[in-house]
Amino acid sequence: MVDAPRNALYAQAGGVTAVLNVTAAGLIAAWQQQAPAEARLYGAREGILGVLTRRLVDLSALTAAELNDLAHSPSAALGTCRHVLQPHEHSVLVDVLRQHDIGTFFYNGGGGAARACQDVQAIARAGGYPLNVVHVPKTIDNDIPGSDTCPGFGSAAKYLATSLREASLDLAAMAGTSSKVFILETMGRYSGWLTAACGLAARHPGEGPHLLLLPERAFDEAEFLRRVQEAVERYGHCSVAASEGLTGHDGQVLHASGARDAAGDRQLGGVAPLLAARVTEALGYKCHWSVADYLQRSARHLASATDVAQARATGAAAVTLALQGERDFSPVIRRTNDNPYQWEIMPVPLSVVTGPERRVPLEFLTPDGYGLSAEGRACLAPLIVGEDYPPFKDGLPDYRLPEFRSLP
Amino acid sequence: MVDAPRNALYAQAGGVTAVLNVTAAGLIAAWQQQAPAEARLYGAREGILGVLTRRLVDLSALTAAELNDLAHSPSAALGTCRHVLQPHEHSVLVDVLRQHDIGTFFYNGGGGAARACQDVQAIARAGGYPLNVVHVPKTIDNDIPGSDTCPGFGSAAKYLATSLREASLDLAAMAGTSSKVFILETMGRYSGWLTAACGLAARHPGEGPHLLLLPERAFDEAEFLRRVQEAVERYGHCSVAASEGLTGHDGQVLHASGARDAAGDRQLGGVAPLLAARVTEALGYKCHWSVADYLQRSARHLASATDVAQARATGAAAVTLALQGERDFSPVIRRTNDNPYQWEIMPVPLSVVTGPERRVPLEFLTPDGYGLSAEGRACLAPLIVGEDYPPFKDGLPDYRLPEFRSLP
Repeated sequence: MVDAPRNALYAQAGGVTAVLNVTAAGLIAAWQQQAPAEARLYGAREGILGVLTRRLVDLSALTAAELNDLAHSPSAALGTCRHVLQPHEHSVLVDVLRQHDIGTFFYNGGGGAARACQDVQAIARAGGYPLNVVHVPKTIDNDIPGSDTCPGFGSAAKYLATSLREASLDLAAMAGTSSKVFILETMGRYSGWLTAACGLAARHPGEGPHLLLLPERAFDEAEFLRRVQEAVERYGHCSVAASEGLTGHDGQVLHASGARDAAGDRQLGGVAPLLAARVTEALGYKCHWSVADYLQRSARHLASATDVAQARATGAAAVTLALQGERDFSPVIRRTNDNPYQWEIMPVPLSVVTGPERRVPLEFLTPDGYGLSAEGRACLAPLIVGEDYPPFKDGLPDYRLPEFRSLP
Repeated sequence: MVDAPRNALYAQAGGVTAVLNVTAAGLIAAWQQQAPAEARLYGAREGILGVLTRRLVDLSALTAAELNDLAHSPSAALGTCRHVLQPHEHSVLVDVLRQHDIGTFFYNGGGGAARACQDVQAIARAGGYPLNVVHVPKTIDNDIPGSDTCPGFGSAAKYLATSLREASLDLAAMAGTSSKVFILETMGRYSGWLTAACGLAARHPGEGPHLLLLPERAFDEAEFLRRVQEAVERYGHCSVAASEGLTGHDGQVLHASGARDAAGDRQLGGVAPLLAARVTEALGYKCHWSVADYLQRSARHLASATDVAQARATGAAAVTLALQGERDFSPVIRRTNDNPYQWEIMPVPLSVVTGPERRVPLEFLTPDGYGLSAEGRACLAPLIVGEDYPPFKDGLPDYRLPEFRSLP
């Protein structure tokens, strides 16, 4: 059953990515091309919150030039939120959908957005309001179940692996007389996909990173220190990628566990400064560390062309499948061939993408758990391939978010 | 007086940059083209230490393809050190120079290397050894006196301004319901050139960064917090660039001053996590922060084409001027026109580049001290212009350092 000529609503949720707006551009362009002319596509500011507060904009009339700007700009053009719908908000939600005759709600986000989609679907159904709910995947964490990879991950992975290749070369240059250890902290509270992807930077034994620390494996400090020392003795230096969500054998996240330094003081920073302090304390090596934080999920200047293509295709497929009558689904990426890498977009029910988060399989790591295995490399390597530079102006990326027209 | 047909020696010193190897490639190519065929160009491993320990390599025979790889790779291909020559090393130094008939010593580094050049010159003179000593400038800190800018600075500035533009867009997307403040820590212990350059990211009032914190101005916490609150109230969010060397009114570097958080615990991280903790404590805003560390001085993937051209020209000019008979000098960049930006390389005596470090003039900042003034922008803007991407392979920059041939 086709929803047209009813209108549609698009919103963005959760942490941004370098290519979230690429998905938006792909979705908007597909709607402009495929939906009946009288069906409008609206956008909500700050995700579902903008629906509740009636901050809607018109996306139907964006020009090709505006969509091109959008696709070359990181962040979330409409703004995002993380919000769990409360009982008193249910009737407002249905009122707003009804007022604008919304037949399809596209919610572009990660696991939280997928669960919100299920909630919206249940609320609309309870309110007797016919609504097709489409979860459009996005996350740098790569943890959405049922997919081969998620739009946003490949670009963050490319950024981190590039950064670690660069920083490892830096470290090696002066390790003889100065810092011998470098630690890069990556995002990922529950899954270590981004940290695993850092392993792509090493082309041969000895090239950094020498150690990967994922939350999938309990952190063993004594073993970690031994491995750092081994690398320094063998290669002269040791570069490390560590997940922010690294946990000890007690299941406590390291940086939140009230860890204290030698002076008994609590550590306020992230995992990287904490590990650096331990290394210096135990081994006497001078360390450098970096916390990439937002930089890794906003680096549109170093987006993966593969990721950009997948992000755009995901947005377009959401529209195409919905207009073809697919209901209450998520368009996810499925790998159809390893080498050469081939993929397609497949709709899966919302119940699939709201399942338990995907974690890195242990076979993606070397037997000792500190490196990327051949199997892990085969999975991750194609996702960072290709460059897709934004336009630059005056030496900086010329990011431009469209001026959206608010609805009255 | 021309030194040829005597040989020359090239070494690299101090912290690396994205374009240090561009200078090396420019210098080596110029030597190959301009020096008499029988005059060799040697390289020392790990700076002056490699001279003392006789770890020399032959640079004369590098191929054009190897020089091209070199120019597209960050770090320091020969390795670097920070080392002040000790009295017992003086005779070894002269012995090694004599053994290889070194007529010119090119030392490629910042202020420390410039002072080492003066030392080497004095040692050679005292040993009765005729030697031309050339300091080849390099530093991301932009603090070498007598120059308009220093090779390495423009690329680090471009990287940081790009990163802050990206992170500020990220912050804005979810500031309504989540983090309202982002703080990026930049390198620069004594001068805030890199922090000032972050101001280039803001194209209009309201676009980040909203506050620049330089070591040239004493940090006033109460005023800083007031400014953060103002920005959040006006724009919904506040993004900040802060120099690692930020100092309080007591002249103490903030992150080394034993600062404690609300719980009375000492802060181990850098300035960014410290400032973030203060903001959250005083204003209740959730903060994100990033410490770029090595990433900012190794990001060859985002080098400034202007910086690349200046780095190459500096290396080439060092050779050309030395072969023309210039003695004991440093080839520095002089601006000859503002708009369009034009520059040339001029030799200055070593006494100039060993003078007091250049700090950011206060007129480069807005009257309140928290922004980049029009004058500051005019100075810094041209230095980041143009892109010079390295080759990529399998999705990552294909950095390749030459296999140097060691001398027997």
